[in-house]
Amino acid sequence: MRGLIFDGQLRLDTSLPIPQYQGDGALLKIRQAGICNTDLELVAGMYNFSGILGHEFVAEVVEGSPTLMGKRVVGEISVVCGQCDFCQRSIPSQCRNRMTVGIRRYPGAFADYLVLPQRNLHIVPDMVSDDQAVFVEPLAAALQVTEGVHISPRDRVIVIGLGKLGMLIAQVLKLTGADVIAVVRREQQARLLQNWGIQTAALEDLEPQRAQVVVEVTGNEDGFAAALNLVESRGTIVLKSTYNGLPQADLTQIAVREIRIVGSRCGPFDAALRLLERGLVDTQPLIEARYPFDEALLAMEHAQIKGALKVLLDF
Amino acid sequence: MRGLIFDGQLRLDTSLPIPQYQGDGALLKIRQAGICNTDLELVAGMYNFSGILGHEFVAEVVEGSPTLMGKRVVGEISVVCGQCDFCQRSIPSQCRNRMTVGIRRYPGAFADYLVLPQRNLHIVPDMVSDDQAVFVEPLAAALQVTEGVHISPRDRVIVIGLGKLGMLIAQVLKLTGADVIAVVRREQQARLLQNWGIQTAALEDLEPQRAQVVVEVTGNEDGFAAALNLVESRGTIVLKSTYNGLPQADLTQIAVREIRIVGSRCGPFDAALRLLERGLVDTQPLIEARYPFDEALLAMEHAQIKGALKVLLDF
Repeated sequence: MRGLIFDGQLRLDTSLPIPQYQGDGALLKIRQAGICNTDLELVAGMYNFSGILGHEFVAEVVEGSPTLMGKRVVGEISVVCGQCDFCQRSIPSQCRNRMTVGIRRYPGAFADYLVLPQRNLHIVPDMVSDDQAVFVEPLAAALQVTEGVHISPRDRVIVIGLGKLGMLIAQVLKLTGADVIAVVRREQQARLLQNWGIQTAALEDLEPQRAQVVVEVTGNEDGFAAALNLVESRGTIVLKSTYNGLPQADLTQIAVREIRIVGSRCGPFDAALRLLERGLVDTQPLIEARYPFDEALLAMEHAQIKGALKVLLDF
Repeated sequence: MRGLIFDGQLRLDTSLPIPQYQGDGALLKIRQAGICNTDLELVAGMYNFSGILGHEFVAEVVEGSPTLMGKRVVGEISVVCGQCDFCQRSIPSQCRNRMTVGIRRYPGAFADYLVLPQRNLHIVPDMVSDDQAVFVEPLAAALQVTEGVHISPRDRVIVIGLGKLGMLIAQVLKLTGADVIAVVRREQQARLLQNWGIQTAALEDLEPQRAQVVVEVTGNEDGFAAALNLVESRGTIVLKSTYNGLPQADLTQIAVREIRIVGSRCGPFDAALRLLERGLVDTQPLIEARYPFDEALLAMEHAQIKGALKVLLDF
């Protein structure tokens, strides 16, 4: 089968063996996949990753239990031990022994086939298209913001970093009724946000210390200091950014102003599917480009353009 | 009157004017004061402070309302505007226009007299001695840990940094019933903690990622990385440390492991007085030394010895 591999260099391998499913696993035939910033970070050296990339996908079950056979599915990316204290507490996304699809010690979805435990799979309702379903993983990650922090309808919430994930987070936050402000530079993003009824602003026009919640999804080292400047005392910064680097952080200010920082990772797939089914999140304008999988290297190059939105791979 | 002044250099001034009280204020005659790490940080250059130092004290009201006259009192250190959104929400400790006794734009308590708004004052019950009452301000700050974070009796809680404040925090945490471990190097602190029934350990003997809550009160730049190593995924780090410096912080780990950081500053004086009155917190062994105020410069030198516990000033 074909697979997009990174092992120090990025290459499309066309002679990989189809993975074998065992026991609880299902064999998935990938229909469509999306390129995430994490894929770009891995190629830039994060986690010393080596293997098949990719963790955003929609697929068809081609081998597995009868209830799943032939179904379109999306898949949670943590492959867990089922034994550790986090698994016992039903927090599999923090399993102490987890592997992560296309990120850590587990093959990714930028390939013709992928094996996953059946417990990781969610059936995609008929009225949710492939183009929507491929956004379930990042939309779930966006919903982890409201899973982790209570956003009150009275809050002022600022999102900084309106890339692929930030645009989904802004839409999720909009649904809370809160006063949402998106800090954005690019005209394309600003127009989309305004179409969705979300206020946009330039960073330099915002008064410091006036937001109850700031969501930091810039994906770079400068994001945290900007968030700290915008959040009011006793307010909350939600950290979504992951990247290579150890920025300096004004921890004394966090103590004195009694700020809360909440790290936020993977989220609830079932809620993401419900929002898509209800038509409450708009994914179509987030698709920047689509490439046949044979042109995956070109697709990755496209995704690396600053400000690029979602680049899809069609299988 | 006498006052310990820092204006680039530390000196005892003996010819300061007695401050005038106005309107809502009360004139306090200081009975006893305590030296805090923050005083040492200010002398080291934090906040470019200039003026009379000191914010831990017990005093007698010598001018003010009849209900307060002659009473022994302790005083909250935020002098607030009463008008801003935080004051309106009854969070005066985060007043946007606040001054802070002996820390920011307000004279301190290392002086014969101090004027404070009467709303800042708490009467000290007869059965609480001066030696205990002088600990009310830091004990309140210790209680702000349990004010800000729910400590469950099932939690494992690690305190790192068992200095003056850390020793009070460990005692407050002990009262929750949680499994409290104090990371301590000095024999004197270890013995005291063990006497109080608190387990002690060396940092290198603790397994990483096994504490639900880590309280970081080291007062130095290395504390945060140690806390991040000890806290489990989805756990909470309470940040008490304030210091000059901008340490590097692994913010990506916070996002991926979904850790929460809670900044924590001043706390509830009334609760601190209740704990002292009930005999639930032991302050006597924390008194390292006492000096007459005329020897305040010597006292400050003593307080700067690494590992020194509370140094008191008697008036």
